[in-house]
Amino acid sequence: MADVPVDSITSVPVAVVGAGPAGLMLAHLLGRAGVETIALDTRTRHEIETTQRAGILEADVARDLVGTGVSDRILREGHEHEGVELRSAGRSYRIDFQELVGASVWLYPQTDVFTDLADARERDGGTVHFGIRDTEVLDVTTDAPRVRYTAPDGTRHEIRARYVVGADGSRGTCRDLVPEDRRVRYGAEYPFAWFGILAEAPASAPELVYARSEHGFALISQRTESVQRMYFQCAPDESADAWSDDRIWETLQARVAGEDGFRLKEGPVTEKTVLRFRSFVQEPMRWGSLLLAGDAAHTVPPTGARGLNLALHDVKILADVLARALGGGGEAALEEYQPRALRRVWRAQHFSYWMTQLLHTAPGASPFDLRRQLGEFDHVVGTRAGRTHLAEQYTGWPAREHDR
Amino acid sequence: MADVPVDSITSVPVAVVGAGPAGLMLAHLLGRAGVETIALDTRTRHEIETTQRAGILEADVARDLVGTGVSDRILREGHEHEGVELRSAGRSYRIDFQELVGASVWLYPQTDVFTDLADARERDGGTVHFGIRDTEVLDVTTDAPRVRYTAPDGTRHEIRARYVVGADGSRGTCRDLVPEDRRVRYGAEYPFAWFGILAEAPASAPELVYARSEHGFALISQRTESVQRMYFQCAPDESADAWSDDRIWETLQARVAGEDGFRLKEGPVTEKTVLRFRSFVQEPMRWGSLLLAGDAAHTVPPTGARGLNLALHDVKILADVLARALGGGGEAALEEYQPRALRRVWRAQHFSYWMTQLLHTAPGASPFDLRRQLGEFDHVVGTRAGRTHLAEQYTGWPAREHDR
Repeated sequence: MADVPVDSITSVPVAVVGAGPAGLMLAHLLGRAGVETIALDTRTRHEIETTQRAGILEADVARDLVGTGVSDRILREGHEHEGVELRSAGRSYRIDFQELVGASVWLYPQTDVFTDLADARERDGGTVHFGIRDTEVLDVTTDAPRVRYTAPDGTRHEIRARYVVGADGSRGTCRDLVPEDRRVRYGAEYPFAWFGILAEAPASAPELVYARSEHGFALISQRTESVQRMYFQCAPDESADAWSDDRIWETLQARVAGEDGFRLKEGPVTEKTVLRFRSFVQEPMRWGSLLLAGDAAHTVPPTGARGLNLALHDVKILADVLARALGGGGEAALEEYQPRALRRVWRAQHFSYWMTQLLHTAPGASPFDLRRQLGEFDHVVGTRAGRTHLAEQYTGWPAREHDR
Repeated sequence: MADVPVDSITSVPVAVVGAGPAGLMLAHLLGRAGVETIALDTRTRHEIETTQRAGILEADVARDLVGTGVSDRILREGHEHEGVELRSAGRSYRIDFQELVGASVWLYPQTDVFTDLADARERDGGTVHFGIRDTEVLDVTTDAPRVRYTAPDGTRHEIRARYVVGADGSRGTCRDLVPEDRRVRYGAEYPFAWFGILAEAPASAPELVYARSEHGFALISQRTESVQRMYFQCAPDESADAWSDDRIWETLQARVAGEDGFRLKEGPVTEKTVLRFRSFVQEPMRWGSLLLAGDAAHTVPPTGARGLNLALHDVKILADVLARALGGGGEAALEEYQPRALRRVWRAQHFSYWMTQLLHTAPGASPFDLRRQLGEFDHVVGTRAGRTHLAEQYTGWPAREHDR
C-alpha cells in the first residue's frame, strides 16, 4: 500500500499520530515555536470528549496550560486541591500537600483539557484530522518518514514529514514500529480492575478520598457541583452491566464506612465502566525519525494520577528537542529526549505501583502482607516523613528536586 | 516432669527466659524499678559474647543504655554515625540523618551491648544463670507460673514467679506456649541470605555503605579500627566453608565497584557465616502470665538494622507495664503492652521488608520490577522527601512522630 497513489500529499515538519491531550499539546507547543504540524486521530472529537478519563493535573501542568496560552479555563472552572485524604479502617488522614511540599494539584477532567487543546488548535489555525482510519506510518528509519491515512470522506492522503510522533495511546500501533529485536517492553499486571462511575449527586468530600478497606479500594473524586466520579476495586473480568445502582452504592458505602460516620451522597449513576490497567514501558522512546510520547510509550495504574501528567511532561521535553532539532540542532538535540523523559517515567512507574499496592487488597495476599501494608499505611499517614514522601510524588516532583 | 522434686525453689516477681540483650535490659530496668528478677539462658556468657550480631543502635536506645546506668562505654568506644551511604550502579549517595531528621545512629556491636548489660547485672547484684538446660515454663495461664531448669552442675531448680517473660529469641520455645488456636503467626521468606564476614582490615568507609548492584546486595560496615564487618547477598543454601578469602573479596569488590573507583580494603577473613532471615510476628505478645519480647515475638530481615532496637523498645514498654502491674496496676497496665509495642513492630516490619526489596536482586524478578526498583532508588536518593522517608525509619521514628 505504501506506493498506491493518494488523493493528496502534504509536507510538514512533524506529523503527530494521535490527537489526544499529548498529541495536541505537542502540536500546540511546536506551533508556538514556529513548527507546523498535522495531527491525526482515528477517534472523532466527540468520542474523545465524552470518554471519561483522569481528572488530576499537577500544578506545573496546569500552569503550562495557562502560561502557553492554551486556555485559562482551568483557573475559572478547575478546582485547586491542596491535599487529599487517605482513609483506612474507617478513619481519614489528610495529606496536606501545601503544608508538606508547597504544591497543589488541580481537579480538571482530561476531557476538558482535551477540549481546551482542540479549541486552541482551531483558534491558532493548526491542522487536526479526527475520525480518520487506516493509518500507515512509513519509512521511519529514514529522514523522510510518511504517514498515510483515509479521511472520513473516504479519500486517501499522505503526509511527508521530517519527524513522526507516536502519541496514539496505550492501544496505538506506533510503538510496534520499533522492531521486536530492538525494543524492550517492561510490564506488570494487577489482579484487579477499577469499576468507575459518574453519578448525579453533590460532592461527598471537598478533596479526593483514597480509601483502603478489608473489602478493597475505593476512590471518591469529583467532577462538578452536581456530578461526581467514583471508583471501586473489582475483579478484572467484572461486567459493568451486571451492577444495579443499589449494588454500586452499597459497595461504595461499605468501603468508606467508619466510626466517623462518613457517608457518600448518592444519586443516579449515569455511566459505569470497568477500567483494566497495567504497568507498561517500552524502550526506546525513539526509533529513527519516530518518537513515542505519553501512553504510547508507557502506561501506569491510575492510582497515583500520573498518566496524563506524565504524557504532558513527555511532550514538553519533546517539543523542546524537536524545535531544536529542526532549528539545526539535529541528532544531538533528539538524543536528549529519552534520558530526560525516562527518569520521570520510571519514578512515576514506581509511585503508581507503590500507591496501588498500598491501598488495594490483592487476592491471595498473605496475612503478613496485609499487616505489613497496615504498618506501611501507618508510617505514611502517621509521620511527617511518610506524608511528605507521598505528597512529593503525588504532586509530581518539583524541578528543584528532580535533578540532583 | 512438672511435679518431680527439685533441688531448690526460689520465688521472684518476674522470671526472664533468655538473657540476651532484651532479657538483660528488661531485668536491668525492672531492677531500677525495685522489681527483682531471675534471668536464664541456655547459652554460656562466652557463647553470647562471641556470636556476631547487629551493630547499629538508635540514638534513643543508646541514650537509654547510658541514662539508665547500664554503662557509658558506648560514648567512649561506640561511633556516632550521622548518616549512611546508599550505592547503586557504582555511585554513592549519602543519606544525611542529622540534616534530614536531626538524629544519628550509633555503631556499637550487639556483643558489646550484651557485655555491658551482663556486667551491669553483676554490678547491681541481679541474678542471671547462663548455660542452663531443659527449661520448662509451667502454668502460664495461672497467676502462679513456674520455670524449671537444670543448672550447669546438673541440679534441678524451680522459680516461682508472678510473671514470666519469654525473651528467648527467634529459636526460643516460649512463644509455643500460646496455644495454636489462640495465636496468629505472620511471616515472609526471602529467596536469599547474607554471607557475613569479619575481616582484619582498616575501615573502607567512615559510615555504613548499603550497595545494590546487578550482582546483588552488599553491606560494608565497621567494628573497630582494625576489624571490619561486611555482608553480601548469597543463595539461602550457600555454605560458608566453600568460600576462600579470595573469592569473598572478589565478590565484595564486584558489588561495590564503580566509576568513582571505590575499593574495599582487604585483609584476612577471621569469621564467615551464612545468615538466613525471614520476617515473623506472633500475636498475641501476651498469654496469661507470659509476655513475649524481642525476637521471641518478632524477627525482621537485617537490612534496616531494626532487630535489636525493636527488642529494646519492647522491653522498655514491658518494664513500665510490669512495674505498674506489680505495683497494683494489675491487668489494666499489662493490657497496654501489646498495642504500644505492636505499632512500632509493624512499622519496622514494613521498613525492613521495604529496605530489603529496595536493595536486593530477587531471583526471578521481572525486568519491570528491576527497572521499577531503580526508579524507586532514584526517588529515594534523589529527592529530599525520599531521603527523609528512609532516614526517619532507619533512625527509628522519634517519639514526636510516633503517635499522632
